[in-house]
Amino acid sequence: MTETAATERACEHARALELVRTSSRFVLCGHVRPDGDCVGAQAAMSRVLQKLGKQVWIYNADPLQPQFDYLAREVEYRTFSGGELPRHDVSVMLDFCEITRTGPMQKPLESSGSKKLVVDHHLFHGTPWWDAAYVDPRAAATGLLVLRMARALGVELDLVAAQGVFTSLVTDTGWFKYSNTDAETLTVAGELTALGVDPSRIYNAIYQRQSREQPHGLARALQRLEYFAEGRLAVIDLPKAAAGEADLADGDDLLDLLRSVAKVEVVLFLREVEHGAVKLSARSKTGFDVNQLARRFGGGGHAKASGATFAGERAAGLADVRARVVAAALEQLGPERPKNP
Amino acid sequence: MTETAATERACEHARALELVRTSSRFVLCGHVRPDGDCVGAQAAMSRVLQKLGKQVWIYNADPLQPQFDYLAREVEYRTFSGGELPRHDVSVMLDFCEITRTGPMQKPLESSGSKKLVVDHHLFHGTPWWDAAYVDPRAAATGLLVLRMARALGVELDLVAAQGVFTSLVTDTGWFKYSNTDAETLTVAGELTALGVDPSRIYNAIYQRQSREQPHGLARALQRLEYFAEGRLAVIDLPKAAAGEADLADGDDLLDLLRSVAKVEVVLFLREVEHGAVKLSARSKTGFDVNQLARRFGGGGHAKASGATFAGERAAGLADVRARVVAAALEQLGPERPKNP
Repeated sequence: MTETAATERACEHARALELVRTSSRFVLCGHVRPDGDCVGAQAAMSRVLQKLGKQVWIYNADPLQPQFDYLAREVEYRTFSGGELPRHDVSVMLDFCEITRTGPMQKPLESSGSKKLVVDHHLFHGTPWWDAAYVDPRAAATGLLVLRMARALGVELDLVAAQGVFTSLVTDTGWFKYSNTDAETLTVAGELTALGVDPSRIYNAIYQRQSREQPHGLARALQRLEYFAEGRLAVIDLPKAAAGEADLADGDDLLDLLRSVAKVEVVLFLREVEHGAVKLSARSKTGFDVNQLARRFGGGGHAKASGATFAGERAAGLADVRARVVAAALEQLGPERPKNP
Repeated sequence: MTETAATERACEHARALELVRTSSRFVLCGHVRPDGDCVGAQAAMSRVLQKLGKQVWIYNADPLQPQFDYLAREVEYRTFSGGELPRHDVSVMLDFCEITRTGPMQKPLESSGSKKLVVDHHLFHGTPWWDAAYVDPRAAATGLLVLRMARALGVELDLVAAQGVFTSLVTDTGWFKYSNTDAETLTVAGELTALGVDPSRIYNAIYQRQSREQPHGLARALQRLEYFAEGRLAVIDLPKAAAGEADLADGDDLLDLLRSVAKVEVVLFLREVEHGAVKLSARSKTGFDVNQLARRFGGGGHAKASGATFAGERAAGLADVRARVVAAALEQLGPERPKNP
């Protein structure tokens, strides 16, 4: 970042903090299907604002996943069910920067007349449409930005806020495994643990809550594994019947197992869902940009983790979708580059 | 810890540091089949001692596992192949406190006339037999103790030493997942990352080097899963033929998958190895002490992770071993305790 850009960002951040200081009523909104970074940042931000004497409502278009129950026991998450939002001064967009990602909340947010504050770590290529922004694409998680804002506002995190930031950090870094895990991530995680966060309990809550059918479902999925491109591409397609009662919805266990194979660079998991629709989850271990791949099919995400949905009415069935996605991946993968000796 | 005990430990640590300061030639020895904590601590300790101008040799009874190649490229690990050890003043026992654990190195160590320094985080119930000790059973890893010693000796870690300590931390905490992950663990991991350690590269080196047969082997193993005690006990037994070319030797992937089932408290993995022998790996998610279970069969380890080997000549085959171990586990598990509402 150039010095000018750094100064601009510092000024932008100062304006965002000023908006927080001078406003009273806040709606914290997440993106559809809110993930751990989103709901963790909401928990932390709500506690920080409450400590400053503000009124706060958390609203998401979709309910919280049960794995984040430990946050829901302490913080009120509301699921938007149509109608108006409560009267508020500032809508805070946490973990996204395009208002369309609020789904059915977009209209009431736009008509509410509130100021729009974006707190996010995603890259945004359009024209800024917000009133204020606290954005840093280098931050490992949005929760980290809430922590930085709290510090700038002179608010110390309580245990619930600390659990929120910790949740953001671990879910967006794959529990400190992904390449966005930097010194700040781990140092902050240490500070949050010193505040009382219990890492192994949070790990247990988020990741150790599978049904007893899960290992058998995984076994059936793993049996369908096929390699392409001399093992650089690993593909699993899973018909609805084969999943059985196992919930392979996010597929994280499965994708992690395939990523652990030394030679694998790209992992594709295609699963048949309701009404003949097919969901793609794509992961990359190398420079291969799965966001670019997913965009070809109307999806998107990050360079290392992306997804797409092939709706039933236009999907030609699992086998056809698989053939198209594998062909596109092989084209993008290209021939193997010789390794340096 | 009482104040007296704390003072005693501080004095013991001071004596250990004094022995390091006043000696010139060191042999750093590991336990048989050295794990990540052991070899990480050896790498770090060797760099720290070299910075102090000491002469250092690292010796283990078994060769380094290939997953720690990134350390072996920078540090010389010697595999003891009989005979005498080089003349040295101090033998440092890293990550263990019983000299029998050095296997074939025990005799030459005893006859070498060197002072014995134990650097370890395991509980020791016997009579101290060493000349000096730097021990803290609350430390998440032995590598952390090497870091504390380096600080006390006024030595800054270089990148290789930092990678060594990081390796110790992540391998002994299951990549920050286990209940020994505390604030110091994460804060130190952050400091090491600031020194240049790349967490995702180390993750890749240690955990993402499986063969392409691995997922299929896992699938075959998962198919053999059976639950006992209303799902609180998960058991997999794997005949040699079913493993195929997959290397499920440490079974960590498999054990992690079973642990992720919400209701599972104890996981047993029994696999047939050479000459009809059977290896048991046992893991606990709760207060269930798998060390106690493993000790009944001549094995041992920690309360959360233990193992045992049933040698071919006395093993009555996989099915019989399984029946005995499951019966013992069910007996120890007892009836389900009612949960607080």
